[in-house]
Amino acid sequence: MKKIINNPENVVQEMLEGMVAAYPQYVRKLDGFDVIVRANAPVKGKVALVSGGGSGHEPSHAGFVGKGMLDAGVAGAVFTSPTPDQVFEAIKAVDGGAGVLLIIKNYTGDVMNFEMAGEMAEAEGIKVASVLVNDDVAVEDSLYTTGRRGIAGTVFVHKIAGAKAEAGGTLEDVKAVAEKVIKNTRSMGMALTPCIVPAAGKPTFTLAEDEMEIGMGIHGEPGTKRTHIMKADELVDHLMDKIINDIPYKSGDEVAVMINGLGATPLMEQFIMNRRVSQILKEKGISVYKTFVGEFMTSIEMAGASITLLKLDDELKQLLDAQADTPALRQL
Amino acid sequence: MKKIINNPENVVQEMLEGMVAAYPQYVRKLDGFDVIVRANAPVKGKVALVSGGGSGHEPSHAGFVGKGMLDAGVAGAVFTSPTPDQVFEAIKAVDGGAGVLLIIKNYTGDVMNFEMAGEMAEAEGIKVASVLVNDDVAVEDSLYTTGRRGIAGTVFVHKIAGAKAEAGGTLEDVKAVAEKVIKNTRSMGMALTPCIVPAAGKPTFTLAEDEMEIGMGIHGEPGTKRTHIMKADELVDHLMDKIINDIPYKSGDEVAVMINGLGATPLMEQFIMNRRVSQILKEKGISVYKTFVGEFMTSIEMAGASITLLKLDDELKQLLDAQADTPALRQL
Repeated sequence: MKKIINNPENVVQEMLEGMVAAYPQYVRKLDGFDVIVRANAPVKGKVALVSGGGSGHEPSHAGFVGKGMLDAGVAGAVFTSPTPDQVFEAIKAVDGGAGVLLIIKNYTGDVMNFEMAGEMAEAEGIKVASVLVNDDVAVEDSLYTTGRRGIAGTVFVHKIAGAKAEAGGTLEDVKAVAEKVIKNTRSMGMALTPCIVPAAGKPTFTLAEDEMEIGMGIHGEPGTKRTHIMKADELVDHLMDKIINDIPYKSGDEVAVMINGLGATPLMEQFIMNRRVSQILKEKGISVYKTFVGEFMTSIEMAGASITLLKLDDELKQLLDAQADTPALRQL
Repeated sequence: MKKIINNPENVVQEMLEGMVAAYPQYVRKLDGFDVIVRANAPVKGKVALVSGGGSGHEPSHAGFVGKGMLDAGVAGAVFTSPTPDQVFEAIKAVDGGAGVLLIIKNYTGDVMNFEMAGEMAEAEGIKVASVLVNDDVAVEDSLYTTGRRGIAGTVFVHKIAGAKAEAGGTLEDVKAVAEKVIKNTRSMGMALTPCIVPAAGKPTFTLAEDEMEIGMGIHGEPGTKRTHIMKADELVDHLMDKIINDIPYKSGDEVAVMINGLGATPLMEQFIMNRRVSQILKEKGISVYKTFVGEFMTSIEMAGASITLLKLDDELKQLLDAQADTPALRQL
């Protein structure tokens, strides 16, 4: 296992310490919990957004804690849902009196633990709502999921719901716009290599030197098919065909595009993918409002990438454009 | 070779097309040349900054083209210096009448070709100055270098010299502050795995499963030693010892820290490195002004990372804090 770590048992703890040391102007860690909150949490009178899940998807989720996005990111063990008490502590720490929205990626463990935490918080008088992100069109059910999985499109939910909350939206408003994003977001990915969970020390699956897996999940869950390595354009055509046919599009529609690297895939390859994505959208008369290329929701050091399209309307465009300032957005 | 590409011969061209398709609000490509310039170039009356080098280091350099940083990024073939005519076209396209500063990483090919391009431009009446970045303390001479190599610290030069140019500095002012950054910047890196140049199709060297190379260059040039895989803290101690002892520091000094992933090393590991970096600096009484963790100067899909320290004064702090807006800085 080739990793720059100390002890596999401590990777999450040490990562969070290193993150807080890097960005104290943005975030702090709750004592005794693997929870990152805004440095100034709770923000009084603002709806608070809490997300999280297993670690290994950095910069998600703690990297998106900051003005205009999340109020807390809860970090479970690698690829393991955080426990209800961790999420509960996060909710209590960030509630500013206007309620808390839980943004949950659709994995059975996350759903169960976040919802249990929400109930614990409600029992203490905190208003809690939740949304379930299920943007991955690859498979209908999966290893850890009933229904579709939540992947990189989740970051669009953080951004747009975060902007709505920052602008003074009520818990109902923020939940409604988060649901609108979810309704209009579709993603699909692929992998060229597995990744290694530090505590396991070896890859959870193998792919031959000439193989790739289409529709693979962000924890290495099986996708739709294992195939020879396709050329970039053929691969993008395949992914885009699934993504674009999952909700109705007509000529003149506008989208935001996200090309998301899974960890070891260079920006060079992500841009080569985006070249073909933009060609396809142009052919279909779909207008690209904004594009984001980089690592947003990774799978440790997996080689691979996903494509996300978010179909926009005026409200979503305005919220997407709103200013946000978090560690993962601030590169210099 | 597991890459998401079409034809290895076209990777740079297709990458640049995909980049311009993603970020038309920031950049455009010069017709017939692998040169990315600001969408609004030339900026009249502003000193223009041109950098570049072989491709494979993305987001460097074109990702830093935009307000407050570079005016042009010249993209050579992968790990190959751009030709003088490419650099010459870049200079001509961005000169706004106030002169052009070339920011050159110290590799023999880059130095020769950028300087030749500078002479061609001067023959046409354009004022040109240049600086040579040589922040890598690992080795004194190297495979492609006389003197020290230029690596991730180059991005601090882009940022600070770019801020000075944006603020109306003359060519002499901008060159002077770039040289001040170079004088105060030191870096060192290591690699766990090689990378594959697409046209070659196979790794240029090998490292055994239990080996790492300390001081390795960003093109896979040999470093100072090949060793067993160290724990993160031991590794950081070794790198920081070389970096921090290369220029005089005293208690109370302030630094900017950059942890730079080389391509396949997850943010998790970069944060674990930063944890130890911040501990060491605290022990020495050196104050961290700002920290940047992420991928700034990569080596395709190499696993590894580098650490950069920039010793700051008030002028450098102010310029480091100045607003910049480029594709690589804008994540959402």
